[in-house]
Amino acid sequence: MDVFELSSKRFTTKHYDPSRKISPDDMGKLKEILRLTPSSVNSQPWHFIIGSSDKAKKLIRPAIMDFNWPRTDDCSHFVVLCIKEDLDESHLNAVTAQENADGRFPNEQIKEEGDSKRKWYVSMKRERGQLRSWATHQVYIAMASLLYGAASLGIQSTAIEGYNPSKLDAILSLREKGLRSVAIVTLGYGALDDSNASRKKSRLPAETLFTELD
Amino acid sequence: MDVFELSSKRFTTKHYDPSRKISPDDMGKLKEILRLTPSSVNSQPWHFIIGSSDKAKKLIRPAIMDFNWPRTDDCSHFVVLCIKEDLDESHLNAVTAQENADGRFPNEQIKEEGDSKRKWYVSMKRERGQLRSWATHQVYIAMASLLYGAASLGIQSTAIEGYNPSKLDAILSLREKGLRSVAIVTLGYGALDDSNASRKKSRLPAETLFTELD
Repeated sequence: MDVFELSSKRFTTKHYDPSRKISPDDMGKLKEILRLTPSSVNSQPWHFIIGSSDKAKKLIRPAIMDFNWPRTDDCSHFVVLCIKEDLDESHLNAVTAQENADGRFPNEQIKEEGDSKRKWYVSMKRERGQLRSWATHQVYIAMASLLYGAASLGIQSTAIEGYNPSKLDAILSLREKGLRSVAIVTLGYGALDDSNASRKKSRLPAETLFTELD
Repeated sequence: MDVFELSSKRFTTKHYDPSRKISPDDMGKLKEILRLTPSSVNSQPWHFIIGSSDKAKKLIRPAIMDFNWPRTDDCSHFVVLCIKEDLDESHLNAVTAQENADGRFPNEQIKEEGDSKRKWYVSMKRERGQLRSWATHQVYIAMASLLYGAASLGIQSTAIEGYNPSKLDAILSLREKGLRSVAIVTLGYGALDDSNASRKKSRLPAETLFTELD
């Protein structure tokens, strides 16, 4: 199914079938899709926390708004999408070292230039107080990759912003790891009575959404 | 090509072939992919400005960082992704009216509940001063839809944050329309000498990216 079809057919799942689990093979593909997500200056300012056991679901439950419990209780897996609180020297050096190991630099000079451009860009974002908002934007690209990636594997999903970030971050000790959560995605297979599965997708008409320049 | 393949093969295009144009049929699909993008509480807080003529490219050029001119000069089409500055009553009423016309509400009571929940959520975001950042997150989902959607149609793309937003917004009179630009995506077909086409994709290894909860 291509992205055009996916975007027509994908829907937000309200009720999961708790008995159906995503296979390790499919979870491996979803992790690879997350890993390969593009980001500004290849900054990869993210970390993903994955849970699927009853224990993990109970652990995060106190941070989830009660109206979202049907998703986090009954999904197969959940992914907490996090930004790195700071993109420090060691993270940026690791990105350059990886690019170097992957053969992206024809010579040392190009490597040095790439490395300093990225560091300049990141410090500019930091100085303007935009580092975390910028990192969050990149994580939303990863979220979309995950939603469409799941749909392409026949897996249903729900993007969840309705939770208490500081509570969740405390439960998962994210500050100690230099992380902040920005959203959760639940994944699994829809229950037969999922009310949203049969409802028509609704969007504003194209004529209100696009302006074509001469 | 499914999303797993797309995420492995897609790359950021550095050099476009200016002689190759995206067909109206493919542009229609890309617009439909943008239109169908999911957003929190179906808020659809966006508007997209599309240009392809030399005139349109010259118009935006003064707002683009010079290092990005090769993309905006030579692409087939560009899309300026905008948030709505405010999600006012009339926008939110239009969303509910559309959902109603699309038959998403079994009865009047469910319609009223859906409408007031969305309005409550939006006013909560506004009160916390998070309305624009929240809208921006949704637009990044649309950006990802566009990047992957283009790749699935064999169209190359570049996400561009390197431009002067206030300058671009002034050039396009966005404030008068209640809009703010948040990013640009260029679309087209890569030039034969596109340096990035043959370089291996580089990402940090999975073991640094994922934490699996017990």
